[in-house]
Amino acid sequence: MKITREAVYHRPNDCWAYGYDDRTVHLRIRTKRGESPWIKVLFGDKCRPWNEMDLKHMDRLASDELFDYWQAEAEPPYGRLAYGFLVSGGGEELWYTEKGFNAAPPAEHLGLFEFPYLHPADNHTPPGWVKESVFYQIFPERFANGNRANDPESTAPWGDNPSYGNFFGGDLQGVMDHLDYLSDLGINAIYFTPLFSAPSNHKYDTEDYYRVDPHFGTKETLRQVVEACHARGIRVILDGVFNHSGISFPYFQDVIDKGKESVYYDWFHIDSWPLEVKANGVPTYKTFAFERTMPKLNTANPEVRNYFCALGRYWIVETGIDGWRLDVANEPDHAFWREFRKAVKEVKPDAYILGEVWHDGMKWLRGDQFDGVMNYPLANAMLDFFVFGQDDSFAFANKIGGFLARYPKQVNEACFNHLDTHDTVRLLTLCGGDKRKLKLAAAFQFTFIGTPSIYYGDEIGLSGQFDPENRRCMIWDPARQDLELYSFYRRLIGLRKSHPALTSGAFVLRFADKSSRLLVYERSSGGETLLVAMNSGAEIVSVRVQESRGDWEDVFTGERLRFQDGTYVDQLGPYAFRILKSTMRRN
Amino acid sequence: MKITREAVYHRPNDCWAYGYDDRTVHLRIRTKRGESPWIKVLFGDKCRPWNEMDLKHMDRLASDELFDYWQAEAEPPYGRLAYGFLVSGGGEELWYTEKGFNAAPPAEHLGLFEFPYLHPADNHTPPGWVKESVFYQIFPERFANGNRANDPESTAPWGDNPSYGNFFGGDLQGVMDHLDYLSDLGINAIYFTPLFSAPSNHKYDTEDYYRVDPHFGTKETLRQVVEACHARGIRVILDGVFNHSGISFPYFQDVIDKGKESVYYDWFHIDSWPLEVKANGVPTYKTFAFERTMPKLNTANPEVRNYFCALGRYWIVETGIDGWRLDVANEPDHAFWREFRKAVKEVKPDAYILGEVWHDGMKWLRGDQFDGVMNYPLANAMLDFFVFGQDDSFAFANKIGGFLARYPKQVNEACFNHLDTHDTVRLLTLCGGDKRKLKLAAAFQFTFIGTPSIYYGDEIGLSGQFDPENRRCMIWDPARQDLELYSFYRRLIGLRKSHPALTSGAFVLRFADKSSRLLVYERSSGGETLLVAMNSGAEIVSVRVQESRGDWEDVFTGERLRFQDGTYVDQLGPYAFRILKSTMRRN
Repeated sequence: MKITREAVYHRPNDCWAYGYDDRTVHLRIRTKRGESPWIKVLFGDKCRPWNEMDLKHMDRLASDELFDYWQAEAEPPYGRLAYGFLVSGGGEELWYTEKGFNAAPPAEHLGLFEFPYLHPADNHTPPGWVKESVFYQIFPERFANGNRANDPESTAPWGDNPSYGNFFGGDLQGVMDHLDYLSDLGINAIYFTPLFSAPSNHKYDTEDYYRVDPHFGTKETLRQVVEACHARGIRVILDGVFNHSGISFPYFQDVIDKGKESVYYDWFHIDSWPLEVKANGVPTYKTFAFERTMPKLNTANPEVRNYFCALGRYWIVETGIDGWRLDVANEPDHAFWREFRKAVKEVKPDAYILGEVWHDGMKWLRGDQFDGVMNYPLANAMLDFFVFGQDDSFAFANKIGGFLARYPKQVNEACFNHLDTHDTVRLLTLCGGDKRKLKLAAAFQFTFIGTPSIYYGDEIGLSGQFDPENRRCMIWDPARQDLELYSFYRRLIGLRKSHPALTSGAFVLRFADKSSRLLVYERSSGGETLLVAMNSGAEIVSVRVQESRGDWEDVFTGERLRFQDGTYVDQLGPYAFRILKSTMRRN
Repeated sequence: MKITREAVYHRPNDCWAYGYDDRTVHLRIRTKRGESPWIKVLFGDKCRPWNEMDLKHMDRLASDELFDYWQAEAEPPYGRLAYGFLVSGGGEELWYTEKGFNAAPPAEHLGLFEFPYLHPADNHTPPGWVKESVFYQIFPERFANGNRANDPESTAPWGDNPSYGNFFGGDLQGVMDHLDYLSDLGINAIYFTPLFSAPSNHKYDTEDYYRVDPHFGTKETLRQVVEACHARGIRVILDGVFNHSGISFPYFQDVIDKGKESVYYDWFHIDSWPLEVKANGVPTYKTFAFERTMPKLNTANPEVRNYFCALGRYWIVETGIDGWRLDVANEPDHAFWREFRKAVKEVKPDAYILGEVWHDGMKWLRGDQFDGVMNYPLANAMLDFFVFGQDDSFAFANKIGGFLARYPKQVNEACFNHLDTHDTVRLLTLCGGDKRKLKLAAAFQFTFIGTPSIYYGDEIGLSGQFDPENRRCMIWDPARQDLELYSFYRRLIGLRKSHPALTSGAFVLRFADKSSRLLVYERSSGGETLLVAMNSGAEIVSVRVQESRGDWEDVFTGERLRFQDGTYVDQLGPYAFRILKSTMRRN
């Protein structure tokens, strides 16, 4: 057997070659799974003598169903980097360069791959605080009603069944009133779904981008909430709905009134006049989905671009918010997002720009647009394995491996890892009420790479199907809160925040197998090692993993374990997990 | 045998999914060579009912050594595009989506690949004139001396042997004086190597970016040359050397004088003070290569960015030039090039931005930076096959196929296809003086996708090794010009300009074989078909290619051919070629 040449892939961009920090380029290559005992990379400055090239081993970063992915750190000695790979497999060794495969080693720089110059200005550099954060997603209309004076006219009693259109009076004062709760829980970042003036209860149909919805409070209330949050070490990001406005947005109303005479006609995508919805349900103007109340904004129009770039700055400057979650972020044009990023980072260099992208987000994650994306592919993989009983641990580990390989390291670290949101069924409901599954999924979420987020109320047992059920009122009566679950989340958050291995460490798979539901992995960095074992099945499983590093402590139970004979031996009950911390510093 | 899953590749970006025009997205996928009889793509709007999805066959775009590349045009019905592939092979059919392979067809939009929205603003749109151009590269110091009054002091007699440092007095008036010559030759675009004030004869060590080198003329002379060119339908691009300046650039001199007190200290990349060259030849400041006279500019410094963006605009506004060829374009940061593009396109939307990138240039060709790159990989492949006698036609066709697949169609069309430049050995010298090889290579260059360029003097037999020999004075004495060669180029240029199939048509390989040096391919568009046959060997070869389309004319000899029995039968002598035009309109 020879090297499967068709499986080998590298291109000098995106996840395959990227600046990681001011000195380091990450180089990756993939090979057919299980085929290559090792891969080496030859690299150096193309303007130095050939004999100054370095050759180093690559690490296996991850594997998925078909491929192994290899990574090496290369420090360009003088900024420039030329490189080629030495691939092994089936007793064969082949050089792989931009010219393809060759048995003979390259003898000159020309024809190698190039990462021509490492420019910090081009690196994808998400704010450092993001990976150290635990987010809490608040749907403001349903979190807490702190000010009855600003309630909508038809406010329903708190806790009644939600409908698509009803209101419960949740507001910013309500958030302010419960900051102690959030601090006690331990979260250190809030993502607010939209706050700006809009007719609906979800506010994704913006009427006035420059006004906090009067039912939520005022700009001043928001400023105070942000200030109070900052005093507690909690960062705040808002939801920016810039793909479309609401139908009552005055500029769209102007178009409705004046037609082609409106100076705002080109602010939207109007296919034909008059504005109407055709028999097949398609409006004569572009919208979010085919929702006539959400006309799509023409972000290629410089006036529109400037309007929203100014807006992005405005709320940061006026209220001190720490960034933006961007709604339907995959549908406006990339040029707009590049300008938006520049505008925002000018006034707050460490603002977090988070895009709602449900699929492969690489195009937005090259350093010039978003810092991270909402990680729906991960969410679905976690649900499949931990909640729905699909996939064996091998299949799940393959999905995870694929995710790790498809983005640069710092992108994965700055992704927003949720298990549910206002757009999905509640986690507890997905679990059929089985808290063991919920806890297991959350334990993975909090010990994986990327920033975990809790959808408000999940921590005290809120449940619900799709909208409107997933937007139930937060429960504040302690007697009706699941305090055991709260305590679990509290410990999980504490764990995440106190272990750098969880935020910055490598993810190393230790056990996954076909037909098994046992998963064991390691997170480690800076001498700290955590070993996580999870049983995503209804049967008791035995754990037997080679692990020579002495004494361990279960960070949840405090139990101390000694691995005899260099092996971690354990039994895990249904949907049980262990998070073990080595009590020895690794060298 | 089953489908080789490891060979299948698609990612929803770059050459794999891109906006081609305002209505069309090109989707591509690759499979193991020879394995798939057909590929289909399922696509549609993710917000419409599932039964509105379209399924269509993909065309085989190209093949290389390992893969077949398939392409389909998809028109997103409402802007949004979700899609998946149906791959066939070895009796098997598999669906391929963002979730991987599946035997069962997808049943919902979630999990498909997405090209979320077709935005014309994000499309790569090179100026339309580029693909219709034939460039002529002028090294101004050596093209013609039209004004003895501005000669450097130590000007050598025209035609003497060039040395690294000597001068011959070539200037812009010299170009002006020979516009009739260029018009007669038929070229319709000029690329000038640097014109700005600099101490060297090549001017890549700029001293004053805002001044035409006084030995070449003045801003006014340049303006007049551009005006005269435009009157003849000739466009003009200049060489922008923005990666580094010359050591005599006043701002670098200011740093030399004042050290860290200089306000221009951060205009460069200074590693340590004082400025010096260490024993290993490495300066204490970054440079082009390790050339101490070419300090690298810090294009991440906003002052530097603004300076060169303003400069990019200045020369367009002041003299009417049509674009920029960017020197060492792979080493400044991408953010700088994005701003540079914006600045230039603001004042001239159809300016051509051409980057000097010798390797895979995808990172600069996403629509936000360059329109095209200098196509060194193609040049090297052409030289290997047509000039150096390496590769059989199968190997050459594989390289060509790989090139076609790795960039979007419009990128390939806007690439700058040269066979030699001021940085290489002259083509005739590479050919060992064998004009048959030179003509054959040029015939391919002019009948392939992309904009051909002639290095001044190649057309009249100029030869020479590397610098300084490749920068010999242009020969103006008709008795010493190779007029037969001139006539050949003139016809080739005329051919290129009069056949839209050559500028915009698809490239279809008709014959290539291992151990053969015969290559046959077709270019066709809009009912026009050209059939090209080339023998890149020293032996006579027989051509036998199925070709049912009736009557043909050799566009070089005027000879008329009728293909009997639906077969093109021919004999080609050593290094001979035919360019046949169908005299029947194809339907």
